[in-house]
Amino acid sequence: MPRIVLDAMGGDFFPDTNIKGALKAVSEYPITVILVGNRPLIEKSLKKYKQFPHKNIEIVHAKDVIEMTDSPAKAFRSKKKSSIHIGLEFVKSGQADAFVSAGNTGAVLTATTFILGRIEGIERPALAGIIPSEKKHFTMLDMGSNVDCKPDHLAQFAVMGNCFSKEILKTSSPRVGLLNIGEEREKGNMLTQQSYDLIETLDLNFIGNVEGKDLTKGKADVVICDGFVGNNVLKFGEGITSLFRKFFKEEAKRSLISFLGLLLLKPTFKRFKKRFDYDEYGGAYFLGVNGISIIAHGSASEKAIKNALKMAYQSVQSSMIDKIKFSLKNSNIPLKDKSNS
Amino acid sequence: MPRIVLDAMGGDFFPDTNIKGALKAVSEYPITVILVGNRPLIEKSLKKYKQFPHKNIEIVHAKDVIEMTDSPAKAFRSKKKSSIHIGLEFVKSGQADAFVSAGNTGAVLTATTFILGRIEGIERPALAGIIPSEKKHFTMLDMGSNVDCKPDHLAQFAVMGNCFSKEILKTSSPRVGLLNIGEEREKGNMLTQQSYDLIETLDLNFIGNVEGKDLTKGKADVVICDGFVGNNVLKFGEGITSLFRKFFKEEAKRSLISFLGLLLLKPTFKRFKKRFDYDEYGGAYFLGVNGISIIAHGSASEKAIKNALKMAYQSVQSSMIDKIKFSLKNSNIPLKDKSNS
Repeated sequence: MPRIVLDAMGGDFFPDTNIKGALKAVSEYPITVILVGNRPLIEKSLKKYKQFPHKNIEIVHAKDVIEMTDSPAKAFRSKKKSSIHIGLEFVKSGQADAFVSAGNTGAVLTATTFILGRIEGIERPALAGIIPSEKKHFTMLDMGSNVDCKPDHLAQFAVMGNCFSKEILKTSSPRVGLLNIGEEREKGNMLTQQSYDLIETLDLNFIGNVEGKDLTKGKADVVICDGFVGNNVLKFGEGITSLFRKFFKEEAKRSLISFLGLLLLKPTFKRFKKRFDYDEYGGAYFLGVNGISIIAHGSASEKAIKNALKMAYQSVQSSMIDKIKFSLKNSNIPLKDKSNS
Repeated sequence: MPRIVLDAMGGDFFPDTNIKGALKAVSEYPITVILVGNRPLIEKSLKKYKQFPHKNIEIVHAKDVIEMTDSPAKAFRSKKKSSIHIGLEFVKSGQADAFVSAGNTGAVLTATTFILGRIEGIERPALAGIIPSEKKHFTMLDMGSNVDCKPDHLAQFAVMGNCFSKEILKTSSPRVGLLNIGEEREKGNMLTQQSYDLIETLDLNFIGNVEGKDLTKGKADVVICDGFVGNNVLKFGEGITSLFRKFFKEEAKRSLISFLGLLLLKPTFKRFKKRFDYDEYGGAYFLGVNGISIIAHGSASEKAIKNALKMAYQSVQSSMIDKIKFSLKNSNIPLKDKSNS
């Protein structure tokens, strides 16, 4: 049975949200969740839900806590007994199969890279997000872990994203697109122009350039970009969504008519939330490291945590990491140290 | 009285939308609009609205038409008698004070740069957009004319954007922000890190880094970024907005309840449109060229055209170009050819 570490101290509402998510996950999937964090806090929370002890839940104590505001590099050096550190060591040593955290993203990325190491041949692991569109969710990488990329990196993202989309989103032949400011081949900056030439030579269903406005239309299953662009694009999207939400909230207070209108639209907004739900996959996947590491949003709900654990479970089941290694070895991608791997 | 050229052949619904916009503009502002394009078509359209001849409207014939799909560089070389070319020559020669077009953006940018030339010291003119937020509209540049930028370019954008925000959006001390993936100074890619150091030395109200999710909150009055990022961010925003619109349209057909709800929310959606209206300023402003050139969206409405003409009028009135030149000369920005200017 897959053993998945959950950072009990991650997220804005730790440990309760994590624990509720873990309890849901163990009731739905054949997994053991290892809660790493402050043992008394974790036990107290489990007792509150009358679930202590629980046959599919283990607890591992971690005395340090990495705060959301801690500097990733500094936290990595000074808080060796944090839940993030200990949890990842469990994966590294084989005592667990995957790691999930809603904690400080930078700290998780840094610790993951140092502790699990990179897959041979991968220069830069990338954060892959799963984003809703008109059709199905698509995968976008990098979402912010690499702010200055080279064409080789983007080509590596393409191979990893393709593998991820197949295994986790069950897309049979993922359409891989390069995020660009126009569809024509010659469009874009130096990075995208050179990356286009390189990605085209790979054994992928490469559909060429895709524009920002096409993402929400579901034009590509895998969208490749450097982390600076990916992060800015997604955060602007978040900004617009929260602008809309705020506006409707204000409107509800404005008049009885708008209040009534919004009331009647409750099922509509529910359908909206269901269809464009960020929580459906619970987190972003750190691809290119030698193990499974999933990062949930700091404000992740228990549903998001449960789904992140589900993603971890599926990744273990599908031997995700081995498949990425296999894809990389069998692609004609320029790999660093390919000869050694 | 300011004389403003309007490319009558620009946009998806030429010439009618342009002509209706021009008629509105001349009725509201003390300007003469010079319609450049196919004379018979323009006259026919003006007659349709019983406005031919009109004392504040002039017509200049242009035999070539640049299509939306034409390659900008090729169109510039081969269609010397296009409305874009002739219109810009009018500005260059002093027969007109400003140029407005809803035509092929790339072609307008290319022709503007070649015909009007750059302001001395500016290496890369930038496309400045005016974007709605929770509070007032803000200025963002570059929106796509420079895909590979250097810190000098971003610093020049900051000075021009600051001047633009003061003159056109009447912001007294514009808060200038650098688009980045985090607020901390050390965040970002090489370009933003180096640009931060440079912009900080300028005589501006520089508020440091701003994140994509803060833009819609109106945190900055001027947002600086390279054109690749700016364009992708905005297009993703467009994508989300159209996704929402499409969803609500589907919902209206779904059930009587949602139809009723949406009906009651009609004033809400109207207020939404009014508050977050892209048409309010009608277009994007090509800053850094030696003359006023405003580019409206291809799907610009007559209101957008009217407002683009209004922007042109205000720019002439406020001696925008001279003020940018003055700002640049008096900033300690690294300028190419500063000694000659």
